[in-house]
Amino acid sequence: MSTDTIRVVAPADFHVHLRQGSFSELVTKHVRKGGFTLAYVMPNLQPPIKSTEEALLYKAQLQAIDPSVEYLMTLYLSPELTPEEIRKAKAAGIVGVKSYPRGVTTNSEGGIESYETYYPVFEAMEQVDMVLNLHGEVPSDPATNTCVLNAEPTFLPHLRKLHARFPKLRIVLEHATTKAAVDCVKSLGDTVACTITAHHLALTVDDWAGQSFNFCKPVAKYPEDRKALQDVVKEGHPRFFLGSDSAPHPPSKKSTATPTQPCAAGVYTSPILLPLVAHLLESFDALDKLEPFVSTNGRAFYKQPIRMTLVENESGEVEERQDTVVLRRAKATVENQYVVRENSVVPFWAGKELEWELA
Amino acid sequence: MSTDTIRVVAPADFHVHLRQGSFSELVTKHVRKGGFTLAYVMPNLQPPIKSTEEALLYKAQLQAIDPSVEYLMTLYLSPELTPEEIRKAKAAGIVGVKSYPRGVTTNSEGGIESYETYYPVFEAMEQVDMVLNLHGEVPSDPATNTCVLNAEPTFLPHLRKLHARFPKLRIVLEHATTKAAVDCVKSLGDTVACTITAHHLALTVDDWAGQSFNFCKPVAKYPEDRKALQDVVKEGHPRFFLGSDSAPHPPSKKSTATPTQPCAAGVYTSPILLPLVAHLLESFDALDKLEPFVSTNGRAFYKQPIRMTLVENESGEVEERQDTVVLRRAKATVENQYVVRENSVVPFWAGKELEWELA
Repeated sequence: MSTDTIRVVAPADFHVHLRQGSFSELVTKHVRKGGFTLAYVMPNLQPPIKSTEEALLYKAQLQAIDPSVEYLMTLYLSPELTPEEIRKAKAAGIVGVKSYPRGVTTNSEGGIESYETYYPVFEAMEQVDMVLNLHGEVPSDPATNTCVLNAEPTFLPHLRKLHARFPKLRIVLEHATTKAAVDCVKSLGDTVACTITAHHLALTVDDWAGQSFNFCKPVAKYPEDRKALQDVVKEGHPRFFLGSDSAPHPPSKKSTATPTQPCAAGVYTSPILLPLVAHLLESFDALDKLEPFVSTNGRAFYKQPIRMTLVENESGEVEERQDTVVLRRAKATVENQYVVRENSVVPFWAGKELEWELA
Repeated sequence: MSTDTIRVVAPADFHVHLRQGSFSELVTKHVRKGGFTLAYVMPNLQPPIKSTEEALLYKAQLQAIDPSVEYLMTLYLSPELTPEEIRKAKAAGIVGVKSYPRGVTTNSEGGIESYETYYPVFEAMEQVDMVLNLHGEVPSDPATNTCVLNAEPTFLPHLRKLHARFPKLRIVLEHATTKAAVDCVKSLGDTVACTITAHHLALTVDDWAGQSFNFCKPVAKYPEDRKALQDVVKEGHPRFFLGSDSAPHPPSKKSTATPTQPCAAGVYTSPILLPLVAHLLESFDALDKLEPFVSTNGRAFYKQPIRMTLVENESGEVEERQDTVVLRRAKATVENQYVVRENSVVPFWAGKELEWELA
């Protein structure tokens, strides 16, 4: 490996929104375009994916759009979910269950309010070894000084409690944005991991103040929080890995905030993901942790071995090789917009220059 | 005074942006429309108002647009400003000097970086009894964890230092947004006052997250900060009073954030100001403090007596009366937009209902 090319084995995005309908056709193809061969797919569609059948149908739709990507499916935690359904889901290859607190982000109106009701479901998940994915924010409440800035730290006691009650249940705190979250996950056992997005390695609150394209939930926080995220990636901590939370919205929902309606929450990184992550990791001197961060750490936690592909070698023999992606150092400007028929989407850092591109 | 009408003597807005050119014609008329007869006018035009001559010319332009309002003029603190110019300004009736930290808000590119250089100017201001108006934020700096959320608390030591060095200089900390700022101003002497905007009595960070029409500098902070602002108004503290910081921008600069350019900072409250403040004060049970907050506190600090007007009484005699404005309880929907020829502006709370209107 020279300093001008980087080979990464089987990049895996452990948190991505692939939407539905014709919009899905646009964005699902961007997983591969961004250098990734595995997508851990969020279930917050309209209506949410709540059963094994729905998840399998959705998986088939995604495979029809791009069969070259491996899709790991999840269910939306809701009162309809039973221990029986968990066992059925596990048997069908579904990997995780996603919990959204009520009302805190896109399509979370049916989210949870308290975890105790779900203990039988979590027990079943622990038994069959499914993963619990937590959107770790509590809803805002002025009476308790809770707002988008402290919604994540305020959630952490729930994570501690769940882990104490279900120590063998694999739990992922999704898209951490605070030093408090990083410290909390570090302090917990090996069954608790944490995803970090690309954009939260780049943004602070100043970047989304008045700039709706950088607005997402959880919101980017203080500079010292961003530093904590960068530091844990640089440290190469095995329980921290990429989950892009790439969340596409039509430009009309991002760019025009009317006085009566806020813009949609979400930053879209899929089509530039691997070059962007390389660019960002290099900016804080952590490029040597690219492969653990975007591939091996997450695959180890999720027990997802690297896919082998059959290739013909130089001697003409067919052999098994690891699936790899190569980046080369080259300045490339991020597209202003991706358009397919009636759908379009604006990527993160539109018009900015990245230092790396896919070879 | 019944509970359905409120009479307020001579409402005074001690911080307002009246812009220039044809845009000024639209917004200057909104001072009176919002129930106010005194406007303390900010100098951050393009280029900024830096001399007595420029301030007097600007005042004449404003008087030509609406002669019924009293305009108190200010100069923009910059290296060009001399003690001689201060004495000249005072003699010409100019009331204050506004300090903007470099780059933190609209047209502040020429703002200050350190106060020591200006000590001779402050000495002259202290001698002639002019007011120093401080935009109390320091520029963001990731290296010191400084961002829009803590820019104001980080500024407060500068305020303390200035007050200690110039104890007789009247200083106003403008548009306070944090509990820290309220506590700081309370702890200082009688020569230090503080303005509070209408919108900061209403907003928290959640309201401008993804909603550019609620984005202004300083940004609205935590619920407990808003509570501290409400509490000091409710307490009727004499050194806290209204300065709307009403800051109009064309809708195109507010509504459409492109990926490469953030929207303009500013919330526009002028045309609904007095009804809005009454509505908000009533919401936290402080309606009895309306007159001190919007008139007498600020007039006392600024030494601006209430204007008397000659009116014919019921017996047909001409007598001198205090200038008053009457509000009546009546549901009124805030306009979606104000348009005059090529100019338009969207008010705060467009489309929402207020409980009070001007009689």
